[in-house]
Amino acid sequence: MAWTQWVREIPDFPLPGVLFRDVLPVMANPEAWHEVLEALEAQLRPLQPDAIFAPEARGFLIAAPLADRLHAGLVPVRKAGKLPAPVLQEAYSLEYGENQLEVEDDRTLAGKRVIIVDDVLATGGTVAATARLASRLEAHVVAFAFLIELKGLKGRQKLDAGVPVLSLLVQP
Amino acid sequence: MAWTQWVREIPDFPLPGVLFRDVLPVMANPEAWHEVLEALEAQLRPLQPDAIFAPEARGFLIAAPLADRLHAGLVPVRKAGKLPAPVLQEAYSLEYGENQLEVEDDRTLAGKRVIIVDDVLATGGTVAATARLASRLEAHVVAFAFLIELKGLKGRQKLDAGVPVLSLLVQP
Repeated sequence: MAWTQWVREIPDFPLPGVLFRDVLPVMANPEAWHEVLEALEAQLRPLQPDAIFAPEARGFLIAAPLADRLHAGLVPVRKAGKLPAPVLQEAYSLEYGENQLEVEDDRTLAGKRVIIVDDVLATGGTVAATARLASRLEAHVVAFAFLIELKGLKGRQKLDAGVPVLSLLVQP
Repeated sequence: MAWTQWVREIPDFPLPGVLFRDVLPVMANPEAWHEVLEALEAQLRPLQPDAIFAPEARGFLIAAPLADRLHAGLVPVRKAGKLPAPVLQEAYSLEYGENQLEVEDDRTLAGKRVIIVDDVLATGGTVAATARLASRLEAHVVAFAFLIELKGLKGRQKLDAGVPVLSLLVQP
């Protein structure tokens, strides 16, 4: 059974009009989740990343095992107020609301090759803000990777057109 | 250089009087982080877990690669309102505040062997609530694992005395 069979679609969550893709049942199933991580690893390894950036919190669940498999640094990007100073901050608007993202101001990331990972590419606000944080750290974003891309929300338009986007599953 | 050298201590964060242990610099360093994951994997593998439970959000960063290495299911335990129904909920009080934790009501976890993983064992409120959620799912908690245990906060007293607690680093 393909991993995509384990994605649950939840209408009107967390707000009316949003069709939420719940990827947690994929992670709860070791075979399905192994399939996902193998696919991501195989496609991302040739890019030789130094670090994987992940927006809080579902992004952590995907980025962390990938960083381990690729022997890359793991850089969590968090909601405002969760990280001790010094941090860099970027604002973003998302499918349902607006928020701030922060990253620790780690100057050793300058010049490093970074992949940004999240579960779902929707409107792209979160990952675009994460990419801006990477740029402010003078790192080079070499790819974006997602489990699911919701094409109709045109998230790709918010991302640097010169950077490859890997989506394991593309939905309308 | 041992991984413990990468832990940053931040006085008065997020509230006055709290000495925050920032483990993110460990994760940003692939060698240090590899050392941590190797140590946790070696000690947890003999317990043959079926699933790893992780409280949001730093717990995700540790539990996710361990679940991958141990070929166990990954079960995120989240703050209230983040997960679609049906969920189970438990209240907890922590070092600085009070909150609700939720887990997806996955009945396939009944009878499964579960390890609960987090970055720091402080007062134990979060992990104790996570253990109650696991019990309500009829899973068996076979171990708790932490990067750092703050012994003086007596978190172990909130955990089932019959379940082993693995802490890579114990501090007063």
